Order: sequence, then structure tokens, then C-alpha cells
Amino acid sequence: MKVKKQKSLTYLCLMVEDTICALATATGVGAISVIRLSGPKAIPICNEVFPSKNLCEEASHTVHFGSIRNANNILDEVLVTIFKNPHSYTGEDVVEVSCHGSVYIQNKLIQLFLSRGARMAKAGEFTLRAFRNGKIDLSQAEAVADLIASDSKAAHQVALQQMRGGFSNELKELREELINFASLIELELDFSEEDVEFADRAKFNKLLEKIKAALKRLVDSFIVGNVIKNGIPVAILGEPNVGKSTLINALLNEEIAIVSDVAGTTRDTIEDDLIIEGIHFRFIDTAGLRETSDMIESIGIQKALEKAQKAQVVLYLVDASKDLSKQLQDAEELKGKLAKKLVIVVNKIDQKPTIKEQIKDVLFISAKQKKGLDALTDTLLSFVNTGALSNNQTIVSNSRHVDALNKSLNQIIKTIEGLNSGISGDFLAMDIRQALYYLGEITGEISSDDLLDNIFSNFCIGK
Amino acid sequence: MKVKKQKSLTYLCLMVEDTICALATATGVGAISVIRLSGPKAIPICNEVFPSKNLCEEASHTVHFGSIRNANNILDEVLVTIFKNPHSYTGEDVVEVSCHGSVYIQNKLIQLFLSRGARMAKAGEFTLRAFRNGKIDLSQAEAVADLIASDSKAAHQVALQQMRGGFSNELKELREELINFASLIELELDFSEEDVEFADRAKFNKLLEKIKAALKRLVDSFIVGNVIKNGIPVAILGEPNVGKSTLINALLNEEIAIVSDVAGTTRDTIEDDLIIEGIHFRFIDTAGLRETSDMIESIGIQKALEKAQKAQVVLYLVDASKDLSKQLQDAEELKGKLAKKLVIVVNKIDQKPTIKEQIKDVLFISAKQKKGLDALTDTLLSFVNTGALSNNQTIVSNSRHVDALNKSLNQIIKTIEGLNSGISGDFLAMDIRQALYYLGEITGEISSDDLLDNIFSNFCIGK
Repeated sequence: MKVKKQKSLTYLCLMVEDTICALATATGVGAISVIRLSGPKAIPICNEVFPSKNLCEEASHTVHFGSIRNANNILDEVLVTIFKNPHSYTGEDVVEVSCHGSVYIQNKLIQLFLSRGARMAKAGEFTLRAFRNGKIDLSQAEAVADLIASDSKAAHQVALQQMRGGFSNELKELREELINFASLIELELDFSEEDVEFADRAKFNKLLEKIKAALKRLVDSFIVGNVIKNGIPVAILGEPNVGKSTLINALLNEEIAIVSDVAGTTRDTIEDDLIIEGIHFRFIDTAGLRETSDMIESIGIQKALEKAQKAQVVLYLVDASKDLSKQLQDAEELKGKLAKKLVIVVNKIDQKPTIKEQIKDVLFISAKQKKGLDALTDTLLSFVNTGALSNNQTIVSNSRHVDALNKSLNQIIKTIEGLNSGISGDFLAMDIRQALYYLGEITGEISSDDLLDNIFSNFCIGK
Repeated sequence: MKVKKQKSLTYLCLMVEDTICALATATGVGAISVIRLSGPKAIPICNEVFPSKNLCEEASHTVHFGSIRNANNILDEVLVTIFKNPHSYTGEDVVEVSCHGSVYIQNKLIQLFLSRGARMAKAGEFTLRAFRNGKIDLSQAEAVADLIASDSKAAHQVALQQMRGGFSNELKELREELINFASLIELELDFSEEDVEFADRAKFNKLLEKIKAALKRLVDSFIVGNVIKNGIPVAILGEPNVGKSTLINALLNEEIAIVSDVAGTTRDTIEDDLIIEGIHFRFIDTAGLRETSDMIESIGIQKALEKAQKAQVVLYLVDASKDLSKQLQDAEELKGKLAKKLVIVVNKIDQKPTIKEQIKDVLFISAKQKKGLDALTDTLLSFVNTGALSNNQTIVSNSRHVDALNKSLNQIIKTIEGLNSGISGDFLAMDIRQALYYLGEITGEISSDDLLDNIFSNFCIGK
């Protein structure tokens, strides 16, 4: 059998031997801060400056109170938690020092650990070690970063599910079944003189179709996963004074309690970001259009189109108190170009309630009186396949993954075609190997230093 | 014996029964965040949403990995550390939940604990409970806040020493000796008909003198303590282009490694703040003076004086390359008004090295060439009694403490006077009681809700 489970080159070449150290909590002043050490010398390095106890003799997962000393100077009174390998986040010996949360103390303790032989951890290095030590696979490691960055319920749910391995377990099983078939086909090649078939072609075809369906579903889920991770861009268009700002403010006010949940994102961002039922909507600034008085004017339409094309949903606001025919004509013109994603919203119905009988297939609202907003948010939510979320289906939200999944899918399709057209075993084996390669890239069975650097450099330091 | 050790009213009246919860680490995104619960229900509240283990049966000071669930939804995978009363920071049952450091997760977990019966902790409430449960005294509690806020070595050292009780132990001993004498004098009052003296007046006088000396030393230490805590204000004066900015930059460059230790303080502040050998110097902006070309002019002098009077040290810069007589005349005029705190610094000696032979009692530097800066920083440091720091003497840095110490000192002096003039036992007893009251205020034996509110409201939430 020539196809073996391929391990990461990095994993084999670089056996990690040093001890790393970093601040694990957010920077700045807090009641407490946590400094984390990981590596073979984590416990002895800490013990050298923590004379209160002999940490090396203490059990894993225990907490110890005492003072950190540099020679005769007490630097702080701390709690030290020890985790012994392999029962830690990184799989190595880990020490977490919970100190008073001043920046001065944080820096002094880190400097002390560095002077005793630890080195400063690079961004994501704790998680990289967890991956290298087989505690988590690559897609789970990436989910850790997504989880920390998540600011809406849906994004949090997708990241958490991925971190817990839902997605990689599914791929792992399919990959293992594929490896079994590959082995059999490679075995046939060894006996090629004898013209035997160890691998049942019908069963193999069935497996390939199953993998194809699974990959297709995962690739398709990226449409949802991407909008969940990055927010759904919504453009609000319409003539000046049609009530665009009033609408955004009305939506913001409605959801202010939920928005305040995401304190910590900057105020600037919140103003144009709305989280509706756990889904993140980004309102694209259409300020440039507000000055364009004639929407028919080609340059105005052009600008509106550019904005609208970047958006996933376009709300076209119409002023009920003004002449409708021209406004609706503009809207229809845009709709012709943007198709389904344009939603016509008739605002200011408080000024002309009878309008409801005159037009169909539009939404009626009064942004000022906050009427009709529920129907509007329902419409916005209809652009997201929330079904996938509530059914707890695996959703891919990482563009690296969807890229590898697409490559795997194409390779599987190629293999099916080859199988159906009866190509020889050696070509089939090559196709399968290539598909296995792409699948392995997702979970990190196949990885390179460049890829790992690229992934982990996006982490924060201390994770 | 009528004088008993008085306990805080608050301590006796308000037995804390509820469970409080707050984020203990700095706000914002980090690798991990810690949420802290304290109170009789801390462990059961956490256990309700952490089905992985029965935390109530686990030992104190142990750490447990598992997931936090709200009904069937997993919110995060966390580490839970439990501390059983009285072996915790607050003296109550305490749970620390170490979760992924997203603001979304922090908020969701806190909301979950609140929904299960915890309540949001007020600023400083964990430390207030530690004080009420007798884990620390009031001056130690205040030192916790100072420790978190400390941004220089000296401020850190003073706060840490106070938190570890150096200062309160000293007061406690003196206070207990005083209580003993007070009891004896009160006993005499019970036998006043018989004209006995249980309390040896000579010994009592000796004790009062000892207390007086100790209080005086502590009050005096505030001069150092205050500048250490708040930084030493330094004004740099001199005619335009004499090199004031160059000097600040030169000092900043020299100390940049140390300044970068206090990353987290804003860049704006760093530019005018210098930490020299662990002491914090604040350079007062003298920009307004730079435009005053004629320093002799009374209005110019006036402005310079205002700036200079706020400073503890005034560096008067003189340009060696220009006519010295006028500059030195201005300097002497200022020195007459500011006395010892004015230091004359002759800059640009690189342009006129021979100047050293012409004037005495001044410092010679070249800010541009960074020459003579060591002598200058030595001079700056000479304004701080660093001896007290290096001898590990107790230093008072809290204005509330120095206020109470001053009141105690005055009361002790009054008692000594009374004793020497032979006042009757009942007046003596009253004086001693008053002195005991002020001493008790410092460590919190005497406290009121208002005082406690005032102290703990300056804490950060979560401590």
C-alpha cells in the first residue's frame, strides 16, 4: 500500500523544544491579567520565581497562591494554575499566572519569565502548538480565531461548531473511506500483470457520489457562512429626503439593546451595523447618492449601481408623499439590472395611508413612526438561509476552506468521470491522491510552513 | 473595661448573602477572558450551566475543562476554577470562568449567570467583600486599586508593600498597645473613689512618644509617597530656541526602553512623561512661554512663575552660545522666588566648551549631543527621597490615610500635653478614644457605608 496518511512536514521537522510566554488576556488595565507559559520548562521557569510551593510536585489542574519574586523583590501576589502535558490547551506543560491587572505588572512578569529562559510567543503560537501536538486539527485552530472575533450570535455559532470539530469529523470520515479505496487500487497496480480488481468499482462510485454530495453541500454553505462571518451588505438607495437616515436610525433604535451587546466594537462601526436576530447586517454608506437629485441621470444611476452591486440586498426607498410614477420608474429600471436583490420600500405612509391600495409587491413603512419595520427586517432575514443555522448544519465560513473544498470537489468529479469512462487504475490512483491532498489541506494533514505562518499570523498574541 | 475593639458598623450590619458576577480581565478582545463569581451560590450557579462535572463535589483550587450550555446551546468551551470559602480572594465561594476572549462570549456568559441568579458586581465589590470578610484591612484594599493603577516601579513598590500589610501591621500594633493603656485608665475611672493608678504614667508617656514618632514618620513619608503615586512635576523654562524640546526628546530617547515598559498608557502621555530609575516625572508643558521673547517683562515672569510654582522641580535652560549675562540675570530673579527647586542648566556647551570655566553651581549639558544628561537625571532624582524606597520603609501614598494619620498625630500630641499637665483620667480617656478612632479609620476598624462607598467606587468593576 503506497498511500499513507500524510503528516504535516512541519509537524515532523520541528519538534518544539522551547517554552513560550505571552499575555493571554486583553491588553490594558483590568482587575486581573493572565500570563501564559507553554513548553517543557513552563513549570520550572515559573517555580524559580514562585518560591511559595514546589510546583513541579503539584498535580495537574491545580491552583496555587503565592508571590512572584525577582531575587528579594516581590513583584506581585498571584494565582498560578498548572496543567501537565498532555492535558492542556497546547498539549505541553502549561502555566497560567493570574496577576493584578496593571500594565506595569504584566510587563514586569513577562520580562522576568523571558529572563528565566522563556521566549515571547508569536501570534497564534499556543494554538499552533495545539495543532502540532494533535490536540486540534487545522480547521479547528482557525475556528478559535473566528470564535474570538465573533460579534454576532450566528458567527459565534458557526465558529463554535467548527471549533468543536463538526466539520472536520465529517471530512475525516470521508477521507478515510477514500484512503481505503485508494489503497486497494494501488494494490491492484502492484498486481497489474494479473488483471485483478480488489476495489469494487460500483461501491467506489457510490462513495465518490457520497463525497461529492457532501462537498457540494459544504461549498454551498459558504454563501451563508460568508455573510454570517462578514455581515450582509445592505445598500439603501433613493432620492434625497426620502428618509434613508431616518430608516437606519429607526432600525438602530429598535435593535439598540442587541447592538449594545457588542460593546467593544467601535462606535463608528456600530452606527452602520445592525444585528437582527443574531445576523449581522452592514449598511453600505450611500451618502454619495444623497446629493444626486436626478436619479434618472445616467451618472447617478451608475453610482447607485456600483453601490448596489456590492450589496447583497438593496432597499430602494420611495417617498409616498411625492409623485410616485417617476420614483417607481427609477426603481424598476434598477430592478431590471439587479433582479431579485432589490426591495422597493415605500416610506412615509403616515402621510398618505391610501397608497397601500395603489401599488403591489412593495413594502410599506413609516420610518418616522416606526411602522412596518418588522416586515422589513423579516425581508432582510429572508436573504439569509437561517434554516441551515437552526438545523445545526455545518456551515463553512472560511475562504481557505471553501477554496480547498472546491478543488476537492472538482477532483472528485474528475475521478467519477474517469471511473465512468473506465480509465486505467494508475490514472485513477493519481486522481484520488490529488483529491485526498486537497481534503487534507483543510484539516491540516497536508500543510506547509507557509500555510501555517499565513494562518497563525492572523491570530492575536497569547492565543 | 469599657473600651472594646470597635468593628466596622457595616461589617456587622450587612451580612452579604447574594452572589456577584463580573468580567475580571480588561475589556476588549483577547485570547482569553476571565469572568468571576463570588457568593454562596457561585458554585451551584456555574454548575447549572456546566454539566461536564459536579463542581460542588470538587476540591478547592482545582480547574475543570468543559462546556457552558444554555439549554441545548453550547456557548463556549471553558476552564472553570473553583475556590471554596474561606480560601478565596473574597473569603466566599469563588468561581473563575476562563472563556474565549470575544466580547460576544463575555457578554453572553455574564448574561447567563445573571439569569441564573447572580447579580452584576459593583465597582470594587469583590475587594469590599474581602475587606468585610476580614481577608484584608481597608488600607490593604485601597492598595489593590493603587497596585492595578501603578505604572512605575516606585508606585508599584509602594502599593505592593501596603497591600501586603506592612503599614497596617505597624499601626495595628501601636493601636493595640494604646487600647491596653486606655483600658487601664478606664478601669481607674471605675475605682475613682479609691484614687488608684493602674496605668503607669511614665510608661504611658513613653508609648505616646513612640506612637507620635511613628505617626510623624508616616505623615512625612507622604511627601515621597504622593510624588511617587502622582509623578513629580518638572517645568522646563528658558528663552525660545534654548533647546527645551531637544532636552525632553533627548531624555525620552535615553529612557525609551524604560518608557516602552509602560505600553498601554497613551502615546500622548508618554511624550511628556518620563520614568527615571523607577520614578515617574511629569514634564509640565511650557509651550506658552516659548513665545515670550523678553523674560524680564513682568508678564512673562509672571507666567513662568505660575508654571514653576506648580512644579516640584524647575529646570531653567540657558543658551551657552548666546549672551549669558541677561539669561543668568533672569534665572537668578526666578531663583529668588522659587528658592531651591530651580536648577540652572546651561545647554549647547558643544558650541562653547570653554563656558564651564566661567560659571559655577550650574549643570552643563548638550541636549543635541546627549552630553551631561546623567548629571541632570541624578539632580532630578535628588528631589525624591529614594532612600526611603531602597530601605523598604513604609511609605504612605494615599491622601485619605495621611489625613487620618495627621488627625491621629494631633490627637496624640494633645494627649501627651494633657498627660504632662496632669489632667484627670476621664479627660485622658476621651483623648485616647479619639486618637484610637482616627487610627482605626485607616485600617477600617472604624468605617461607615459612605466611606466604603467612596473608596470602592474608585475601583474597576471585577476587582
